[in-house]
Amino acid sequence: MTAETMRAAVLRGIKDIVVEQRPTPVPGPREVLVEVRSVGTCGSDTHYYEHGRIGDFVVEGPLVLGHEASGVVVARGSEAEKHRIGQRVAIEPGMPCLSCPQCRTGRYNLCPRMRFFATPPVDGAFCEYVAVHEEFVYPVPDSLSDDAAGLIEPLSVGVWACQKARVSPGSRVLITGAGPVGLITAQTARAFGASEVAITDVNPHRLRLAAELADAVTVNVAEQPLSEAGLEPEVLLECSGVPKAAAEAIRTVGRAGRVVLVGMGGDELPLPLSHVQNFEIELTGVFRYANTWPTAISLAASGKVDLDRLVTHHFGLDEVEQALTASAQDPTAVKSVVVPSR
Amino acid sequence: MTAETMRAAVLRGIKDIVVEQRPTPVPGPREVLVEVRSVGTCGSDTHYYEHGRIGDFVVEGPLVLGHEASGVVVARGSEAEKHRIGQRVAIEPGMPCLSCPQCRTGRYNLCPRMRFFATPPVDGAFCEYVAVHEEFVYPVPDSLSDDAAGLIEPLSVGVWACQKARVSPGSRVLITGAGPVGLITAQTARAFGASEVAITDVNPHRLRLAAELADAVTVNVAEQPLSEAGLEPEVLLECSGVPKAAAEAIRTVGRAGRVVLVGMGGDELPLPLSHVQNFEIELTGVFRYANTWPTAISLAASGKVDLDRLVTHHFGLDEVEQALTASAQDPTAVKSVVVPSR
Amino acid sequence: MTAETMRAAVLRGIKDIVVEQRPTPVPGPREVLVEVRSVGTCGSDTHYYEHGRIGDFVVEGPLVLGHEASGVVVARGSEAEKHRIGQRVAIEPGMPCLSCPQCRTGRYNLCPRMRFFATPPVDGAFCEYVAVHEEFVYPVPDSLSDDAAGLIEPLSVGVWACQKARVSPGSRVLITGAGPVGLITAQTARAFGASEVAITDVNPHRLRLAAELADAVTVNVAEQPLSEAGLEPEVLLECSGVPKAAAEAIRTVGRAGRVVLVGMGGDELPLPLSHVQNFEIELTGVFRYANTWPTAISLAASGKVDLDRLVTHHFGLDEVEQALTASAQDPTAVKSVVVPSR
Amino acid sequence: MTAETMRAAVLRGIKDIVVEQRPTPVPGPREVLVEVRSVGTCGSDTHYYEHGRIGDFVVEGPLVLGHEASGVVVARGSEAEKHRIGQRVAIEPGMPCLSCPQCRTGRYNLCPRMRFFATPPVDGAFCEYVAVHEEFVYPVPDSLSDDAAGLIEPLSVGVWACQKARVSPGSRVLITGAGPVGLITAQTARAFGASEVAITDVNPHRLRLAAELADAVTVNVAEQPLSEAGLEPEVLLECSGVPKAAAEAIRTVGRAGRVVLVGMGGDELPLPLSHVQNFEIELTGVFRYANTWPTAISLAASGKVDLDRLVTHHFGLDEVEQALTASAQDPTAVKSVVVPSR
Repeated sequence: MTAETMRAAVLRGIKDIVVEQRPTPVPGPREVLVEVRSVGTCGSDTHYYEHGRIGDFVVEGPLVLGHEASGVVVARGSEAEKHRIGQRVAIEPGMPCLSCPQCRTGRYNLCPRMRFFATPPVDGAFCEYVAVHEEFVYPVPDSLSDDAAGLIEPLSVGVWACQKARVSPGSRVLITGAGPVGLITAQTARAFGASEVAITDVNPHRLRLAAELADAVTVNVAEQPLSEAGLEPEVLLECSGVPKAAAEAIRTVGRAGRVVLVGMGGDELPLPLSHVQNFEIELTGVFRYANTWPTAISLAASGKVDLDRLVTHHFGLDEVEQALTASAQDPTAVKSVVVPSR
Repeated sequence: MTAETMRAAVLRGIKDIVVEQRPTPVPGPREVLVEVRSVGTCGSDTHYYEHGRIGDFVVEGPLVLGHEASGVVVARGSEAEKHRIGQRVAIEPGMPCLSCPQCRTGRYNLCPRMRFFATPPVDGAFCEYVAVHEEFVYPVPDSLSDDAAGLIEPLSVGVWACQKARVSPGSRVLITGAGPVGLITAQTARAFGASEVAITDVNPHRLRLAAELADAVTVNVAEQPLSEAGLEPEVLLECSGVPKAAAEAIRTVGRAGRVVLVGMGGDELPLPLSHVQNFEIELTGVFRYANTWPTAISLAASGKVDLDRLVTHHFGLDEVEQALTASAQDPTAVKSVVVPSR
Repeated sequence: MTAETMRAAVLRGIKDIVVEQRPTPVPGPREVLVEVRSVGTCGSDTHYYEHGRIGDFVVEGPLVLGHEASGVVVARGSEAEKHRIGQRVAIEPGMPCLSCPQCRTGRYNLCPRMRFFATPPVDGAFCEYVAVHEEFVYPVPDSLSDDAAGLIEPLSVGVWACQKARVSPGSRVLITGAGPVGLITAQTARAFGASEVAITDVNPHRLRLAAELADAVTVNVAEQPLSEAGLEPEVLLECSGVPKAAAEAIRTVGRAGRVVLVGMGGDELPLPLSHVQNFEIELTGVFRYANTWPTAISLAASGKVDLDRLVTHHFGLDEVEQALTASAQDPTAVKSVVVPSR
Repeated sequence: MTAETMRAAVLRGIKDIVVEQRPTPVPGPREVLVEVRSVGTCGSDTHYYEHGRIGDFVVEGPLVLGHEASGVVVARGSEAEKHRIGQRVAIEPGMPCLSCPQCRTGRYNLCPRMRFFATPPVDGAFCEYVAVHEEFVYPVPDSLSDDAAGLIEPLSVGVWACQKARVSPGSRVLITGAGPVGLITAQTARAFGASEVAITDVNPHRLRLAAELADAVTVNVAEQPLSEAGLEPEVLLECSGVPKAAAEAIRTVGRAGRVVLVGMGGDELPLPLSHVQNFEIELTGVFRYANTWPTAISLAASGKVDLDRLVTHHFGLDEVEQALTASAQDPTAVKSVVVPSR
């Protein structure tokens, strides 16, 4: 029997998170109740914490953050038959409407009625329990740690980006930005068969990690302009979120190359027009992901992508504020994880 | 027997074209000699005429302009067996190396060793005869006029753009700019099955022509901002070459939409980042075309695209300067054509 | 107010259909109640009527046939807000689960839990009212007749086939079989821009209709073997359902050609192996369709596909048996339609 | 200086190969002369040796077999500047015309004028020197053995098959047949990121090798029918060349699955129609390959595909007949290689 209330870390205003008692969710007919085991922190969580908004998404009431979550199934709705009680699962944190044209064509990540964890006004996973549609939780093997199961979410971003960019054996891939997403995407590109992976950053620690985890050529752009690095990638996976860096990187992409904008930040990217036209470069962005969990789980379970190595800090529910600010204070921090039971 | 010399309109310097006698080309083994019948003028010809350069391409010696050409086969090289003498043909004006990686993967338009008509230092077709590889001239049916056969070249641009954008039945297409390429592309989009075609310009004459030829909804952006036109296209074919207009148009594109940059002009396009990312818009540019002639000829021959209606002026070889400046002086001018025999 | 019961033509056993009074369906929360106006008859309806089964699908209880339906919205469920009362609509007759992997990747036609009209044990539309999810009925313009609105269903098959085959301007298309689906598919191929359309059959009446509606080259294979017709299509849309004819047609397909198996019939197709391998022909089949209604409606509404011309006979609800057997008795019959109000 | 004559193993009739002195080829302007170091034997070589023909290709004069070749550049034609003398290279053994529609669209493997090694009347590589277009030889790193460099040819078949089947992370792949091509393709599927690889054969030795090299699940179809193996692959790469086995394997493929026919043999494949249609399975064949060498070399050089492990026997030029018959006599033989200098 699950308790009627649970602990949840609630954002009440800018830089103001407190742990409150809240009613434990009751799963709907096709939902399962998941006891949360691990929740990664994401730059978007930190941004809501510090600014109270991301673009048009404004926090107007109390909000639970956190969307990189794993856990264990502890209860099932009346029609939920897919998972057994006790099953360890990774959680896909967005619930689309399923019936609109975007959903029906397989692009449910673009569903205008999407309800996504930790995006106002939908609560996230910095709490003890969440209720999720049974088709949006995925069993994970025992070989996968709780943390890694939660980080299937950012790995899904890398998978989606590599799919969009059609990374495959023979691809020469450049990744700009060696933050958590860049580090994951570099490994993912390797798992998709990329023949060469190069990565840029200004943080030597992260570049070393990229070299180690993804056998990546590293370019410290604080020391050397990218244009002088002698690269001519076929694929650019832009993970820095810095428009000017993105534009500079696009100029290095070779004929018929593909560019996927993964990092978020800035309003406008000064697109180098004649380069894009003369080389017929294809550019697109990723907005979350669709249908990536099974693939991401298999990549992590097979060891092709090492997620545990990215986890540098663990915090309890009452330390969410520290979790959200750890990487600003420690250049060797990569990914902080919240463990509700801690 | 072809005469040993021919007349050619030669650009000798900025705004300086004179007709000279030049040796008639001798076709190589797999080339045919084509007597030129009609050559459309293009904005790039005018740009070379007025500025002596386009970006990195600089006119450094005498140059024959003109690359939208049709004619009649009058002689064949020793191994050229594909066409009979007397065959009326449309000419594809670029000769790639055929053996580099770009060529071998079917992207011969991106061949670094491309030799393209009227692009320094390669001469074009404002002359009486040109020699062309037999696989780069295409028979046209009698129903196609000489002018239309020459304008298969800009129609190829429209075909290539619609192919890149995957225009098909159901597509809602916005075309920005109703110049010759926009007017051709609008008709091409219809031929690809587009369900709705809208077009923008500031020239009412051209908008009326677009409405008539392509049953297009027209938006005069001198009178109404595009953002207020209530459009949400799935496909944007940018034919204006104005970066700011392009950026504004991109903001109207719907989820999973495609943008193809056809028009040339400006250095940077201020790409609206969050729109491209949140809607996962795919953007690319076209650089000429590859393998489009047979399709373009069939579209023109079937009447689905009316090229003759675009031809508003005819000039002789000694009037090339007037041909290149006609549309600047007459707002009702659309396409000027040079007829060497005139 | 809708009456509590309605008339329905019920298949009670092989060759045994009677009109019964049945409860009028009550729409679920997101469903609308549609008063049926027109229902086309399909070969599958006739097959169930005559044989009581199609392959593994066996009629084990009373069944209402009919799945090519249009009508008018007369009531709405509590959460159905998409259509107004009185709206004329075309009905998509299959309701997938929406949440399984096939549905979520946009292939909802392959949903293992699909509930499809007139497929045991799901009732169809030979009755006065049906309840349908609001996202699976589509408004039609006044220019579209009730019959044409019903025949959006077989037109969807043609659209799906042309999409799978990537028919576009330049395509040379061969259609084998000039039955209703072949005649629709031939017109659809034209609407997708096909440059050449050829069609085979043994019924001169149908071949004439194909020539008229789709400007198709016709081959009467009772008089001339297909292999001697001099065709080398890029695309084969197999609509005959005769495996031997399909195999013969595949042998005519050119290099890198596409084959889509639309017609059903027979267990095995003797695939000409070396032809498929040496020419790298791509072959697939269509199973119903996904996301085709908006495109199909636009094709019919624009006049590009003429559906009314295919309707040769009308019947009332108490004449369903005649409707299902009309084409067997009259070689000039093409499509019989049931009008419940008649 | 290269000698004026060289040794070549010439097929003079069925089961009649003798070593003759022949003129050393003189490279054309864009050709290089390659001293042959290693040539793998292929089933097609053996077939020509034993039957004098493969389908429509009939050996009508003396023919040098062998097309899986590597070597060293020893001379260059007048315009060949791409490779230095002494460069070790892998040889792509087919020379397309480069200018026909198939070549120009990137499908040069389907070129009707292809001249392919060891395919009548074009000589192959069982000799000391061959002349090859400089764009069809590829530098290999020192880490790649001469044998492996030659076996880039069959690896290219695997690469082409995996590209056609769109193998990527998440794919569950079944390979039928664990001969040399099956063993290579299984490893290639892994390199493309396949999550699961299963393979069938009747030879336990080869199945063990597949398990070891590609971590493949093995099914000995002499002991267990494939239909009882509990597989539901997303991708089938058919490498057995046995039509009946192919048909049985196709029946196991899941919804929206892809089938690529790699193995050759038999005239007709009894295609299970309703399975292909109901599951919308995509099927195609591979005919050689296009643009695969750089990718294949990178896969072999990185160790992702182990080609040396497949080489079980080496022979000299005067032992070609033994090389061609080795695998028929020894069930543990996999790939026999001819070393002209031996």
